[in-house]
Amino acid sequence: MAARSRGPRPLVLSLLLCALNPLLSQGGKLLLVPVDGSHWLSLFGVIQRLHQQGHDIVVIASEASVYIKEGAFYTLKSYPVPFRREDVEASFTGLGLGVFEKKPFLQRVVETYKRVKKDSALLLSACSHLLYNEELMASLAESGFDAVLTDPFLPCGPIVALRLALPVVFFLHSLPCGLDFQGTRCPSPPSYVPRVLSLNSDHMTFLQRVKNMLILVSEGFLCNVVYSPYASLASEVLQKDVTVQDLMGSASVWLFKSDFVKDYSRPIMPNMVFIGGINCASKKPLSQEFEAYVNASGEHGIVVFSLGSMVSEIPKEKAMEIADALGKIPQTVLWRYTGTPPPNLAKNTILVKWLPQNDLLGHPKARAFITHSGSHGIYEGICNGVPMVMLPLFGDQMDNSKRMETRGAGLTLNVLEMTSEDLANALKAVINDKSYRKSIWFKRRFIQKKMFNSLKAHHLTWYQYHSVDVIGFLLAIVLGVVFIDKMLRRCQQALGKRI
Amino acid sequence: MAARSRGPRPLVLSLLLCALNPLLSQGGKLLLVPVDGSHWLSLFGVIQRLHQQGHDIVVIASEASVYIKEGAFYTLKSYPVPFRREDVEASFTGLGLGVFEKKPFLQRVVETYKRVKKDSALLLSACSHLLYNEELMASLAESGFDAVLTDPFLPCGPIVALRLALPVVFFLHSLPCGLDFQGTRCPSPPSYVPRVLSLNSDHMTFLQRVKNMLILVSEGFLCNVVYSPYASLASEVLQKDVTVQDLMGSASVWLFKSDFVKDYSRPIMPNMVFIGGINCASKKPLSQEFEAYVNASGEHGIVVFSLGSMVSEIPKEKAMEIADALGKIPQTVLWRYTGTPPPNLAKNTILVKWLPQNDLLGHPKARAFITHSGSHGIYEGICNGVPMVMLPLFGDQMDNSKRMETRGAGLTLNVLEMTSEDLANALKAVINDKSYRKSIWFKRRFIQKKMFNSLKAHHLTWYQYHSVDVIGFLLAIVLGVVFIDKMLRRCQQALGKRI
Repeated sequence: MAARSRGPRPLVLSLLLCALNPLLSQGGKLLLVPVDGSHWLSLFGVIQRLHQQGHDIVVIASEASVYIKEGAFYTLKSYPVPFRREDVEASFTGLGLGVFEKKPFLQRVVETYKRVKKDSALLLSACSHLLYNEELMASLAESGFDAVLTDPFLPCGPIVALRLALPVVFFLHSLPCGLDFQGTRCPSPPSYVPRVLSLNSDHMTFLQRVKNMLILVSEGFLCNVVYSPYASLASEVLQKDVTVQDLMGSASVWLFKSDFVKDYSRPIMPNMVFIGGINCASKKPLSQEFEAYVNASGEHGIVVFSLGSMVSEIPKEKAMEIADALGKIPQTVLWRYTGTPPPNLAKNTILVKWLPQNDLLGHPKARAFITHSGSHGIYEGICNGVPMVMLPLFGDQMDNSKRMETRGAGLTLNVLEMTSEDLANALKAVINDKSYRKSIWFKRRFIQKKMFNSLKAHHLTWYQYHSVDVIGFLLAIVLGVVFIDKMLRRCQQALGKRI
Repeated sequence: MAARSRGPRPLVLSLLLCALNPLLSQGGKLLLVPVDGSHWLSLFGVIQRLHQQGHDIVVIASEASVYIKEGAFYTLKSYPVPFRREDVEASFTGLGLGVFEKKPFLQRVVETYKRVKKDSALLLSACSHLLYNEELMASLAESGFDAVLTDPFLPCGPIVALRLALPVVFFLHSLPCGLDFQGTRCPSPPSYVPRVLSLNSDHMTFLQRVKNMLILVSEGFLCNVVYSPYASLASEVLQKDVTVQDLMGSASVWLFKSDFVKDYSRPIMPNMVFIGGINCASKKPLSQEFEAYVNASGEHGIVVFSLGSMVSEIPKEKAMEIADALGKIPQTVLWRYTGTPPPNLAKNTILVKWLPQNDLLGHPKARAFITHSGSHGIYEGICNGVPMVMLPLFGDQMDNSKRMETRGAGLTLNVLEMTSEDLANALKAVINDKSYRKSIWFKRRFIQKKMFNSLKAHHLTWYQYHSVDVIGFLLAIVLGVVFIDKMLRRCQQALGKRI
């Protein structure tokens, strides 16, 4: 059977080109400073498109890069760093493995903090070795680039752009700690805009709004460990005071790999361009191998399963639980998994090292999608109208799955706590209960037409909108604590005097 | 000579259709509730485009409408009102004539207030006669419309939409008193977003920010006279409490006939679509008459002059001053003017009752554009890269010309105070000083590519951004006045006691 007609998204592509082209001359030169890992993979469609438009693209990456390699549509310039590819690989693997470790909450937080600190030191060192590579920087300065395209998740690209005095375009999904709002100077009322990682929706109860405010207040401290070293490095290299705000505020245009089909309504700024779902645009026919799998699946169709590029191995016990669940449904499951195959793998489950995710989801036999709910996968699910069982692992994945679940487009499971039964039931639900497919097809229609959400105004009172009640509440707590503390001291003094 | 290639603006058009199409079924039905006057004229391109897409369009208008007439691309349904077309015409003429009356400031304010009150009562009565026209409303309810498209400048359309329980799309340039920000619940910090009619830019001095804040505070009262009667009418018709905010907040999508090539950067909301310059898209070859004028102009080329559809007559003295100025330049001037021809009209000046403004401006011989700086004309000037001499008359025209002048795309003159010499000098400047053409061609490039402005973040401190200094200053004044008042009373009392 031929795949349903699901054309590219011309408007999203033209938005992208409209945002980039003015910065490029005819047959322009673009310098790309990417972030390794899944962040790099999502740039592919953009690079291809810019290449087709006749632009020259130069990618700079450290020699220890794991994913960034030579490619057909760009020139790779790599520079030496004092660590090996294996070290970076280990940090990625650690990220994936860490997810499955059952440890007490506080221990997890401390270990995560330590890992983030260590990993980001590694990547910061790569940035430093790029900026202090006089030869490479001189050759870049002479190359006559029109602009820099970079992912500000690790803000090395902005420093390169400032050093070369070039306009810079950001390409990202979102930034932690509201750094994207800070960088664009975009208002973001905590009364109805959920902070990243808060798991809040745009309709919050009073206590959720208190949580949102507390996250906002604490974000500054949390992000310091990763981001302020880049400001120090930039100050050193540029020989003037540079803040994180300066780096984040340096972009002319922000290309967001999201939109308001996925996200909740919120204020935006005119230089934000929403190109969510751009990764769905390029669609190819299935290879013989996958075509054969799909055809053999019969009337039940297939389930596509991937936990993303960052997870290579799952602990045996968990993998067996998952394999058990997959065996309980009549669909053929195509599971992208590079680890040791679980011994109890059922007949309907096919392990593959890689799968053409978007093409498979676009096949009319796709019944469900098991995903870690990275933004990429979420959009491929929406564009192709396939309901999802979401197993979010880290970062913004919890927020993504929350957004999908609250809109009825899928079900979320906690990968650590779920049983084999939970997963099987969730799969059966999204496959057999038509409401999930209906919800996601509704979203698909929105995204295909680049539709503007019928955004209903929030119904907050003025004091709720401006968080007056939340601030009052928190202030009352602080004053209460101070008051009690003072009373206790007085009691102590009084007692002391008596004694 | 052939006109320079200045293609349509496909992205603006696709944005428009993307915003509207999702609300319309295939070959959908759209109900259009327009506002008479220049507001109606700017809808033409949109109607034509929707008609081409196979949508049915029904326009409702009172029988006393001046500009809204039968058309090729839509069905007109008109309803009776207890006043004549001449009454509406008189209110338009009064608006145009009032501009040229030299009167003391306070008298002008009072007279403007009275005229606005009278005119808006007339138009409100039309709305009331539409909503209480049971037969027409019933036939509309049965027509199976998909959506309502309306200009909320006079919010009759939103009431019709609420009455028929249809989704509504707003089509506008801007609303007075920040009602557009209120309706979309869009943040609008008065520290760097100039209020309509303030003549402020996005970089304000302390005193300009105080002025901006004072305008913000007083807007509520000023707009009440026009807008709250619509809320009362809506409450009556819908038999529930309806506020102006309810009416303004009822739109799914807001189509703004502006963009950030003309306007300053500011927060926006995801359901705002900026289709500024959509009126430049349709371009036709010149008629024989105008082609002949242009060809006869020789190397000096032409100047296009129009004060818009609302000005039909200019006081004789002023018209003679203008005619004198026009005679001082070597260009041929095509002046759209329906009043009595000034007796001193020079040979180079041709009076016409109507001119194909966009097509003339698009001709390579167009050297300058004298305009009242309505948003329409401003965009036609930008799209065609013709520098402007701006004579703003009322409404947002002062703001428009301010935006253009601060960016070097033209010169502004006060039509009441300018001398013949001033106008001639301004014309010579924009024609001969290359910097004006350069500035406007820069803007033209932006708008043709639907380019995103390289928006630099404003450089306000946190207390400036949140207007803490302005609020403190105003509070100090209020407290100062209260304090002095109290002291005076005490003195009085003390004196009273002594006596």
